[in-house]
Amino acid sequence: MTEKKGYAGNGFVHVKNPHLALMDEDILYHLDLGTKTHNLPAMFGDIKFVCVGGSPNRMKAFAQFMHKELGFEGDGKDVKDICAGTDRYSMYKVGPVLSVSHGMGIPSISIMLHELIKLLHHAKCRGVTIIRIGTSGGLGIEPGSVVITDTALDSFFKPQFEQVILDNVVVRSTELDKDLAEELLNCSKEIHDFPTMIGHTMCTYDFYEGQGRLDGALCSFSSEKKLEYLKRAYNAGVRNIEMESTVFAAMCGLCGLKAAVVCVTLLNRLEGDQITVPHEVLLEYQRRPQQLISIFIKKRLGLYNQNKLLDNAFFFSN
Amino acid sequence: MTEKKGYAGNGFVHVKNPHLALMDEDILYHLDLGTKTHNLPAMFGDIKFVCVGGSPNRMKAFAQFMHKELGFEGDGKDVKDICAGTDRYSMYKVGPVLSVSHGMGIPSISIMLHELIKLLHHAKCRGVTIIRIGTSGGLGIEPGSVVITDTALDSFFKPQFEQVILDNVVVRSTELDKDLAEELLNCSKEIHDFPTMIGHTMCTYDFYEGQGRLDGALCSFSSEKKLEYLKRAYNAGVRNIEMESTVFAAMCGLCGLKAAVVCVTLLNRLEGDQITVPHEVLLEYQRRPQQLISIFIKKRLGLYNQNKLLDNAFFFSN
Repeated sequence: MTEKKGYAGNGFVHVKNPHLALMDEDILYHLDLGTKTHNLPAMFGDIKFVCVGGSPNRMKAFAQFMHKELGFEGDGKDVKDICAGTDRYSMYKVGPVLSVSHGMGIPSISIMLHELIKLLHHAKCRGVTIIRIGTSGGLGIEPGSVVITDTALDSFFKPQFEQVILDNVVVRSTELDKDLAEELLNCSKEIHDFPTMIGHTMCTYDFYEGQGRLDGALCSFSSEKKLEYLKRAYNAGVRNIEMESTVFAAMCGLCGLKAAVVCVTLLNRLEGDQITVPHEVLLEYQRRPQQLISIFIKKRLGLYNQNKLLDNAFFFSN
Repeated sequence: MTEKKGYAGNGFVHVKNPHLALMDEDILYHLDLGTKTHNLPAMFGDIKFVCVGGSPNRMKAFAQFMHKELGFEGDGKDVKDICAGTDRYSMYKVGPVLSVSHGMGIPSISIMLHELIKLLHHAKCRGVTIIRIGTSGGLGIEPGSVVITDTALDSFFKPQFEQVILDNVVVRSTELDKDLAEELLNCSKEIHDFPTMIGHTMCTYDFYEGQGRLDGALCSFSSEKKLEYLKRAYNAGVRNIEMESTVFAAMCGLCGLKAAVVCVTLLNRLEGDQITVPHEVLLEYQRRPQQLISIFIKKRLGLYNQNKLLDNAFFFSN
């Protein structure tokens, strides 16, 4: 069984759930928000860009960076966690940009996406672009490279996500928006400090055994078997490996959100398993997808190359 | 293919990975710890009880609670996050008790367990008991009830965990330690404020579609189909549903750790999907597994019923 993608002309976010309209109240439990306790259209109605990533600190840093990049007054240090009432996820808003953490792995990002998509729906947002900015292991490319995903693949190199619904397995497409990926690649041409490319991204359920690492608590395969697997992945077009892209592509596709995945690679998995890069280098790597997305957002808003001349704060009310 | 359990006589934690012994250094990346940067035997060698749970705040509260229960001096408010250098997980130590957060879902807890098990191995810990204290949805039982898991089941009610290794699927047993479950049930007889029972726990990859919720962004089934599925689960012996128990049971079993899962139920899924309990009631529910585990730990240490008379602080150096 396969399902149809949800892109439609009106630009609204589609929830594909007939039961929702019948509910008197919707509590977004893991975000600590709700339709009766919060005025979601007033709080979120102007959102045009949603950026998500695993680490709460990184998503706070991204919000502070965008505060500066969009020319808002102040240093953005006091940007408020909208989900402060829960420690499951963190969420920050800077003008039309929402920055949300999703934890690690498919189940964790899936809970967040269900509630985020309902949030965007309740808030009547239109024309939203959603981008995952993450970290990943690279395959045959220089550490620090940025990979823009065209298609997310599972552990068997298939472009699909298997969703268990009750006890049935439904297969969903994991293709991402091709035009958006090209637009992002074009933006990367403004940056000369690191390589950026489009490629397939493999998404696994596990960081150790599932990604062929030799350094977990459990490992039953040889170094040769590991390399044989990773080389097969490379030959199938995989350029990086992470743990969220398949379900992200599948859910955003079904709900009519134009979606992209932009991850920096922290190491080359053909050369090792452990992340040995010094802390400062790691921090610099993690800022690379943010830099790229900042250029993309500013171009979309018509602010690129202007913000050295102008104070753009008057464009938005935060 | 099935694998053998790792229980052995000497009480050490078994890593089942021949490559580890050949590594000059082991960086536990997501815990921000390592064999060259930290003296793991000195820091962790006396650990006898490891308690894990999804929420970092809850695991901090548990550490503070144990600080008080074990009679340490001070209020424990300043208990230090050992993993403060990363925001992936939080970790607190109170005498022989380690309290660690694991985020939500199988992949998230699996990363933490790989690194935790290596930590206990490097630290030469012996006779460690590990307990997940979590939250869950109940099935046909009163909200606030505590379920001690005998066996974790997957979405198809099978007592197994499918681990993808490279691109092979390996089936692992999800049985938990029966004696430990009985010992915990005995401890619950000291508490008269809430019901505690032994039952099967179903573990899913998803909070919404995978658990038959009608309130996600996506839902393609009817209320009748949902109830039919949940009733089948109940008839298979399932008393609660969460998202980590199968991989927890499988990995701990393979590595020779006596393991238990003790979860409070926040609602009865036969009666609804949304968690509508007021915040204060939710907090009180979440303390229930902690109360039970505190009695268990104090009994094991010979401190139960003494700590009203004695100051036990001299038993340990924290």
